[in-house]
Amino acid sequence: MTADPRPVVRLRPKADPRPVRHGAPWVFADEVVLDRRTRALAPGTIATLEDAGRQTLATVAVNPGSKIALRVLDRDPGAEIGPDWLRARLAAALDLRARLYDAPFYRLVHGEGDGLPGVVIDRFGDTAVIQPNAAWAEAALGPLAEALAEVTGVRHVLKNAASRARALEGLDDASAVLIGQAPDGPVPVEMTGATYLADLTGGQKTGLYYDQRPNHAFAARLARGARMLDVFSHAGGFSLAALAGGAEAALAVDGSAAALELAEAGAARTGVADRFATRRGDAFEAMEALATEGARFDLVVCDPPAFAPSKPALDKGLRAYERVARLAAPLVAEGGFLMLCSCSHAADLARFRQASVRGIGRGGRRGQLLRTGGAGPDHPQHPMLAETGYLKTLAFRL
Amino acid sequence: MTADPRPVVRLRPKADPRPVRHGAPWVFADEVVLDRRTRALAPGTIATLEDAGRQTLATVAVNPGSKIALRVLDRDPGAEIGPDWLRARLAAALDLRARLYDAPFYRLVHGEGDGLPGVVIDRFGDTAVIQPNAAWAEAALGPLAEALAEVTGVRHVLKNAASRARALEGLDDASAVLIGQAPDGPVPVEMTGATYLADLTGGQKTGLYYDQRPNHAFAARLARGARMLDVFSHAGGFSLAALAGGAEAALAVDGSAAALELAEAGAARTGVADRFATRRGDAFEAMEALATEGARFDLVVCDPPAFAPSKPALDKGLRAYERVARLAAPLVAEGGFLMLCSCSHAADLARFRQASVRGIGRGGRRGQLLRTGGAGPDHPQHPMLAETGYLKTLAFRL
Repeated sequence: MTADPRPVVRLRPKADPRPVRHGAPWVFADEVVLDRRTRALAPGTIATLEDAGRQTLATVAVNPGSKIALRVLDRDPGAEIGPDWLRARLAAALDLRARLYDAPFYRLVHGEGDGLPGVVIDRFGDTAVIQPNAAWAEAALGPLAEALAEVTGVRHVLKNAASRARALEGLDDASAVLIGQAPDGPVPVEMTGATYLADLTGGQKTGLYYDQRPNHAFAARLARGARMLDVFSHAGGFSLAALAGGAEAALAVDGSAAALELAEAGAARTGVADRFATRRGDAFEAMEALATEGARFDLVVCDPPAFAPSKPALDKGLRAYERVARLAAPLVAEGGFLMLCSCSHAADLARFRQASVRGIGRGGRRGQLLRTGGAGPDHPQHPMLAETGYLKTLAFRL
Repeated sequence: MTADPRPVVRLRPKADPRPVRHGAPWVFADEVVLDRRTRALAPGTIATLEDAGRQTLATVAVNPGSKIALRVLDRDPGAEIGPDWLRARLAAALDLRARLYDAPFYRLVHGEGDGLPGVVIDRFGDTAVIQPNAAWAEAALGPLAEALAEVTGVRHVLKNAASRARALEGLDDASAVLIGQAPDGPVPVEMTGATYLADLTGGQKTGLYYDQRPNHAFAARLARGARMLDVFSHAGGFSLAALAGGAEAALAVDGSAAALELAEAGAARTGVADRFATRRGDAFEAMEALATEGARFDLVVCDPPAFAPSKPALDKGLRAYERVARLAAPLVAEGGFLMLCSCSHAADLARFRQASVRGIGRGGRRGQLLRTGGAGPDHPQHPMLAETGYLKTLAFRL
């Protein structure tokens, strides 16, 4: 017996220890000895991982109830996961964003990609929103929020518990204010020439889609003088960027009245409200109606919700992406542009591209593929999880 | 017998006509009836393609001596491939670039992606360089150059016959001046904040690598205050952009004295010569020597020639990419950036990423993957050839 009170967890004899040695961030439940003692550990317990031969491998967080039973926090098996450790990870994350962006509006922490597994933090000036999507982060939420305020100087820290991932970790969906207070209304965010309004307490995700920033910028580049259609617009990410880039007019379609209100308020702040219109309703129906009306646009962007969030939903999801492309293509003027996005983990780039190209063909059109975009560099990927790059944005010219 | 003197070529009974109906740009030799009459056609002959049941499919260019026996020029089986047709394709290509770029320096035509199979045209202000890499384009070179001058207003049109692809089409490597005259020295190109010098008559490719433009811009974004190393620098694409972006110093390594001279002249034009140095020699040896010297850089970029240009070269090529990563990673300062590029068709993104990540690991380092970049939008892809997107640029932070 050692004096170290930290529990030890062990790989099964048949589990290969090399992936962890080479930096793999996850160990699945079927690779771990889940004896009674390990199963009794509280979700989020910090432990030392050993291979079957009792060689130490890493410092991990244990969640006996999750398929991802272990998340590797540090390759140092003796690392102490305390305030110093949290501050160091956050400082490294901040350092990158400070180099990349002029203003403090970005995804500050992107989970495994930033060495903080399951933790997502978006920053909106002096307010930060944490998504603790792994049990260890939920357990360490107080120190994490404090370290965050110290390192970045933010004065308000909110917890957003809306992610589907939390249920897989056995966590509830109760959001909260951790430090300071919630903003008393939508927060303005200047990005890609436009001013967006982000709803940090009631919105989807953490209030704004920072991941699409480089793709917004590309849309803006195509938009000069264009009539633009923004389908599944949310708070107007693409349409406001396009208007700021010189679009003649933009129409945003979304099912959510709240999202369209934010988009309208953002258009007013950006000074483009006179060129901006919204249409609430089902996106598929709206595209069919626009086709019937004979509407044509020089730039059409479709950024739907994840139709294929998981493998069982893949086939159905791909059909939905194809349908989006099929309905959108006829709305594009000759020589115009069509941008199609997928934020589905399960649909890889090749499959999504194939569904999109097929849909464009079934819509009676053909295109050149100008650009394949992904999430911006404030969404770094763990190199061993890079296959899961979820965001794909294809820009076609038809 | 019809009055149409145009030859007809036919798909074999077992060849599926649907890909061509759906827009496939190529038909391979084993899918075509290569009878004596077809084999006797001059390379580049325009013909009408029929399926085995004599249904017309498309207008094609025939090259009986190439693996790509047919290139689809137009889905209209009766299209006349004359000056009007060439002008229309060139005008569509120009229209896109004029929207994308402020100055007339870009890839104007990117082969199949612009509906001109096998034709590459780079524009440098009032000079254009054509690579006719398919037999039909060689046969139509005069009208193509004239249409190019008419549509774009360029005054000088050069032919560059250096591409490896020409040998596969049975074409020679004799370059020429088609219209006007060759520039009497390197041509200045302003791009990404720097002024590059392009050698349009003696250089690699068509004198400058436009394809890396968005990746140059990303390097520039990372470069503020950085000590930068540009391995396989060619004419300084990444290093001059980094210096223009605020790098403290840049060292360019290349095996070609001519390329380094262009880089130095570009640095002088950009006004950054005092922060720019070059080192001529083998890139692998130079990296080993720098490691021995204990040199460290905040940003290292490696943009080697195609190590895996074809499938037989794949394994060897991937080992070379791994070696580049292994030698480069130790030269990156803690928290610094490493950009690794591949312009190999045969090495797909997943394989190249895997080789790079493995090399970084064998170099004793680990990284986050910040960004996966490709060629700029003046290099559009045919949607059915999108798998062959040759340029991959991975940006890591170590």
